[in-house]
Amino acid sequence: MEEIASNKISGGWQKRYQHQSEVLGCEMVFSVYLPPQAEQGAVPVLYWLSGLTCNDQNFVTKAGAQRYAAEHGVAIVAPDTSPRGDDVADDEAWDFAQGAGFYLTATQQPWAKHYNMYDYIVTELPALINAMPAIDSSRCGIFGHSMGGHGALTIALKNPDNYQSVSAFSPICAPMQCPWGEKALANYLGDDRESWSDYDACELIAKTEQQLPLLVDQGSADDFLVEQLKPELLEAACKDRGHPLTLRMQPGYDHSYYFISSFIGDHIKHHADALKQL
Amino acid sequence: MEEIASNKISGGWQKRYQHQSEVLGCEMVFSVYLPPQAEQGAVPVLYWLSGLTCNDQNFVTKAGAQRYAAEHGVAIVAPDTSPRGDDVADDEAWDFAQGAGFYLTATQQPWAKHYNMYDYIVTELPALINAMPAIDSSRCGIFGHSMGGHGALTIALKNPDNYQSVSAFSPICAPMQCPWGEKALANYLGDDRESWSDYDACELIAKTEQQLPLLVDQGSADDFLVEQLKPELLEAACKDRGHPLTLRMQPGYDHSYYFISSFIGDHIKHHADALKQL
Repeated sequence: MEEIASNKISGGWQKRYQHQSEVLGCEMVFSVYLPPQAEQGAVPVLYWLSGLTCNDQNFVTKAGAQRYAAEHGVAIVAPDTSPRGDDVADDEAWDFAQGAGFYLTATQQPWAKHYNMYDYIVTELPALINAMPAIDSSRCGIFGHSMGGHGALTIALKNPDNYQSVSAFSPICAPMQCPWGEKALANYLGDDRESWSDYDACELIAKTEQQLPLLVDQGSADDFLVEQLKPELLEAACKDRGHPLTLRMQPGYDHSYYFISSFIGDHIKHHADALKQL
Repeated sequence: MEEIASNKISGGWQKRYQHQSEVLGCEMVFSVYLPPQAEQGAVPVLYWLSGLTCNDQNFVTKAGAQRYAAEHGVAIVAPDTSPRGDDVADDEAWDFAQGAGFYLTATQQPWAKHYNMYDYIVTELPALINAMPAIDSSRCGIFGHSMGGHGALTIALKNPDNYQSVSAFSPICAPMQCPWGEKALANYLGDDRESWSDYDACELIAKTEQQLPLLVDQGSADDFLVEQLKPELLEAACKDRGHPLTLRMQPGYDHSYYFISSFIGDHIKHHADALKQL
């Protein structure tokens, strides 16, 4: 693991690392923000999962998260959204393959060779992060945007012992019932829709035993709201199961980082409050 | 003037406009943030001048200024850094010509035809902005970064009736005494160094009658500090003249937007406090 950038921001350090990923079979880059409190002792850590077309830099440069991470004393890890490189199978579409790993384990070729973002996010990356003296591995949250909101919700629901807090901006709530999700799941997992349900937040809500409270912000002027994101399905699934959900429809906001930056402070506080109680 | 983008952020609206500039002789794009208070009445306005290679988007997407503008109820205008287009003379270097207009009026050809950023910022753009009902043209501040810090300081010092507050991040304090400045001034203005002094903050400090207080933040780990920026010359000029200057050396910070975003809140408060007193 090699440090390739380090910039001081809000009293802490925004760092960027490169490493050879075993589970993805390629070189990967991720970013970590260490708040000033990390110089005094280990701090809780949040994982931010980005959306379609992003890499680790979009969140780091546009969300304005660092000042809140510094205020609350939490680290934030921002990984890339898929395996990368000339050797990694790709597709011409912007909503599939490189930049669109969907945080799952592909079973169909040619994708199965590299597209294993689920294990990367849940196992390999945390092992690297938790080896840092600045990180308290026992206090961990996960959040994300759009495809990354889908990733955060599904990963937290499936691994309640690993994550003590979760939230999402404009998540793809029901990938089995929207074009982005159906395309990705069919290509990565094949035609058996039963196998898809392991990566659909609405399906997982119905199965989960532990009820981690969900915080979801959604812009009402989001162009993808009706066709792709469908928060009403998440709301219905949570209601059916009695799963705690705070869904905030934010009037006039769209799908961009302008929206994320407007409410990122609320999300970081949500995580910090949950993790401080541990 | 045509609105080409509008995104809700921090309760207000980040807008982007395109227009034909008469003084620059080309089509230009600029951004304006309107805080939520602008829906109730006219608000003060700040002009942000960006640095080398930037356009209007760098500040808008990376500085995290909108939340502070919303907190204090000020609009922020972010123009481009030079005339643009295939018809506009350019140079291969990143530190000269397009993206590097240096906020002056060029007198030498081929630059004199389009490079008149001084009049664009001081006269043409404010005329467009002040025509907006949301803008209180009587309360106006100016700030910027690097080349834009140079622009903010020199424009405020030369037009004390137009600007009631000024600040800068990592400004080029003495363009007559650094490689970036000498290259730009010689090309845009010719060999007569006397004509350069009209665009050098240290020279202008010695001449100015009205003593607008200056706030300057400078990172100690800035790679351009010693060769290009030279805040010690501004400090000496202000001391000689008794001109009020708050120069804050910020340990460990570099020349990037990570630095700007760390202190942009302080700068917006500095301007808002000055403009509220009017």
